[in-house]
Amino acid sequence: MQFQLTKKFIEQLKQKLESDDHTWIHKNVLELHHADIADVLEELSHEEAKQVYYMTDDDLQADILMDLQEENRDRLIESLSIKELADQMEHLDSDDAADILGELPDEKIQEVISQMEDDAAAEDIVDLLNYDEDIAGGLMQKEFLKVELDWPVNRALRQLRRQAEDVERVYNIFVTDEDDHLLGVLSLKRLLIANSTTKIAELYNSKNIISVKTSESPEQIALLMEKYDLVTVPVVDYQNKLVGRITLDDVVDYLKEEADKDFQLATGISEPMQSDATIWEIAKARLPWLVVGLAGGILGAKVISGFEVSIANIPELAFFIPLITAMGGNVGVQSSAIVVQSLARGEQQIGSILGKIWKETLVGLVNGVLLSLLIFGIATVFGGLGLGLVVSISLFTVIIVAAIFGTFIPLVLNKYNIDPALATGPFITTMNDVVGLFIYFSIGLIIFSMMA
Amino acid sequence: MQFQLTKKFIEQLKQKLESDDHTWIHKNVLELHHADIADVLEELSHEEAKQVYYMTDDDLQADILMDLQEENRDRLIESLSIKELADQMEHLDSDDAADILGELPDEKIQEVISQMEDDAAAEDIVDLLNYDEDIAGGLMQKEFLKVELDWPVNRALRQLRRQAEDVERVYNIFVTDEDDHLLGVLSLKRLLIANSTTKIAELYNSKNIISVKTSESPEQIALLMEKYDLVTVPVVDYQNKLVGRITLDDVVDYLKEEADKDFQLATGISEPMQSDATIWEIAKARLPWLVVGLAGGILGAKVISGFEVSIANIPELAFFIPLITAMGGNVGVQSSAIVVQSLARGEQQIGSILGKIWKETLVGLVNGVLLSLLIFGIATVFGGLGLGLVVSISLFTVIIVAAIFGTFIPLVLNKYNIDPALATGPFITTMNDVVGLFIYFSIGLIIFSMMA
Repeated sequence: MQFQLTKKFIEQLKQKLESDDHTWIHKNVLELHHADIADVLEELSHEEAKQVYYMTDDDLQADILMDLQEENRDRLIESLSIKELADQMEHLDSDDAADILGELPDEKIQEVISQMEDDAAAEDIVDLLNYDEDIAGGLMQKEFLKVELDWPVNRALRQLRRQAEDVERVYNIFVTDEDDHLLGVLSLKRLLIANSTTKIAELYNSKNIISVKTSESPEQIALLMEKYDLVTVPVVDYQNKLVGRITLDDVVDYLKEEADKDFQLATGISEPMQSDATIWEIAKARLPWLVVGLAGGILGAKVISGFEVSIANIPELAFFIPLITAMGGNVGVQSSAIVVQSLARGEQQIGSILGKIWKETLVGLVNGVLLSLLIFGIATVFGGLGLGLVVSISLFTVIIVAAIFGTFIPLVLNKYNIDPALATGPFITTMNDVVGLFIYFSIGLIIFSMMA
Repeated sequence: MQFQLTKKFIEQLKQKLESDDHTWIHKNVLELHHADIADVLEELSHEEAKQVYYMTDDDLQADILMDLQEENRDRLIESLSIKELADQMEHLDSDDAADILGELPDEKIQEVISQMEDDAAAEDIVDLLNYDEDIAGGLMQKEFLKVELDWPVNRALRQLRRQAEDVERVYNIFVTDEDDHLLGVLSLKRLLIANSTTKIAELYNSKNIISVKTSESPEQIALLMEKYDLVTVPVVDYQNKLVGRITLDDVVDYLKEEADKDFQLATGISEPMQSDATIWEIAKARLPWLVVGLAGGILGAKVISGFEVSIANIPELAFFIPLITAMGGNVGVQSSAIVVQSLARGEQQIGSILGKIWKETLVGLVNGVLLSLLIFGIATVFGGLGLGLVVSISLFTVIIVAAIFGTFIPLVLNKYNIDPALATGPFITTMNDVVGLFIYFSIGLIIFSMMA
């Protein structure tokens, strides 16, 4: 039932475009869901995409515009006239329109706004453009349903009919006094069940109303919506006047981006890439962390070179260099990942930093003892009792140090408002490599000189 | 305005519980949002939590139950009588009730169901219990609004009033024929605007209706809801009969769990941990990947030991062991992370596997050349031209090999239905360590013997 995009379909469409077969295109492309049409356009050349785009009507054009990936969207917007762009803004939700206009130069924004025929819509967009993109004011939309406390149900329904024309999707209705101060929320369900003469005041819910200020951060909004299981949250200004609403799908997009970002930091990629990025763009995005890794490797070389004589005498010492660095890295990343996740979940910070570090140290202790015993036997087989002692004692030490570092660093980063997920990436690994090598060779020096 | 949980508040509550100060508890705890009450209960002992729990009314009790973390919820459920549990099931949405009952032994489920007074609710739950937890049938709820095609608006509104009593939150209304076959969707907005004698057939949307089968996977549902920007999706059986709906918040929970899982795999943690897990549980969850790392380290030691003579002659070779392993690991994880993300996003698989590998190889080539040139100079300073050549040539080789491995492995895992995110963790790093060391020492042997 769902549309499946295939290479064959795209080839066919390209042919039909060339032969101007509008009937085929109307039947097979323009009848699709706008999200699917956008997917199809992504696979066409710019000229071909424009051709198909202009065959659709205004309403569909606006939706397709929002569904396109940024790069293709920007190119399409550039090719639209000011008047065309103004028409499309009227077909979009105010938050989407503001997002698109916000990317344009100031003069162009002004031109587009002045060409819009719907003055109320234009005003909403202008209002939203005042807010930063990454606060509630920048995420919210001006389309919402609102009733006043002292209205009876039948008046409320009349008013809602009027308001609903602008509102794409209805989740719930906000209740205000006549000065727009937010007082509560009314579910559509209660309105449907109610008697037509009942006052809104008797129906609405005023207890534990969750709202956010225009300045609220998306992280906080996401946590609130998740915790209180909200599909939409009202946005109020500093006088508690209702100014907009944020819907769950906007926040889902945000949450997904954040999760992607954490994953990218943990895996050493500095910025998200679109699938059509050039080789050079991709290479550039990965270079920073690789250079950090390289610097760590050079530091490591410096540390080892300080023990050159020991290695020349006991080359077996070199055997376990990769083991020590790998284990330090693994343990450190595990510990920091735990901290990063609990921070991201906004878990109640009732436990202290010291408590967390203590817990991770104990975990390191348990795993350290187990793994050290294991490696003691193996390293002794490789190079005798001395090597066994050196490798097992230093592995134990490295595991504990890495666990403490891995816990401590993201907490500190978070305290100074730096994304703690930074610590799950090459950063921690590199640091633990260098520290681990130093511990390993120092212990080696001590034990072998004691045994000599 | 929002409730802030503090240590002081919990201590105060514990005192009030001891002194049986119900007035204080009613005013300061029971008036809170159920999600906040659940947070409070998490911080109390089991006995204290039960005391507070029993002070709340049935409706609130059910909500709190759903908000509690699994461990505490299970303990609370165990202490409820069959009758109490049956009462609470009637206050929950059918999907939540089925989730809770599904965890219990079969006889207990039967007892609870037989004690429920609302037969329709009991039937819904029994129906949902038939489905696996991780398919659409297991995620859906039976509460939804439904109108028939040939009803006029006023009849639809009358029917909806009746249906709405059971439905917690209303997003949109499904349209069926008289045999329950799904025909389309009606937005509440259109119903609000419409004339009371208009037929539903004239109002509803039948084009591009997105629905899912009961057997659909959560991944696929999440992708659909995201792509088509849905807040709720109808679930149909194999005859296209409407059997339930899935709401975005259920899918958001699922998406979050998936993102967490990827992050955990990338950072080497085998299972999610609650914040109150014991030291031993935490240690155990991390041990598997650490053992993999250890095994890799031992393999690495084996590889290096094969070159013992070279190291004894040229100890400088050992200096750059950490650099080679770290860079191989970093590049490999970056490449596999990119593949994992594009797989998770369900990106159109128009490009072939070979195409992806080729692209990553080119990226490796670019970064390999840049970083090798950099390290050539530095290694030459450390240990002369020979070492410079060895380190730079092997770094270049290792980067390219790691990029290819990192792309190839998650794609292969995915092909065999194994979670490709596995490849972003210690797995890739360990493998690249061993292969990298072999490349490094082999090149060292060749170049130094050529220069000798």
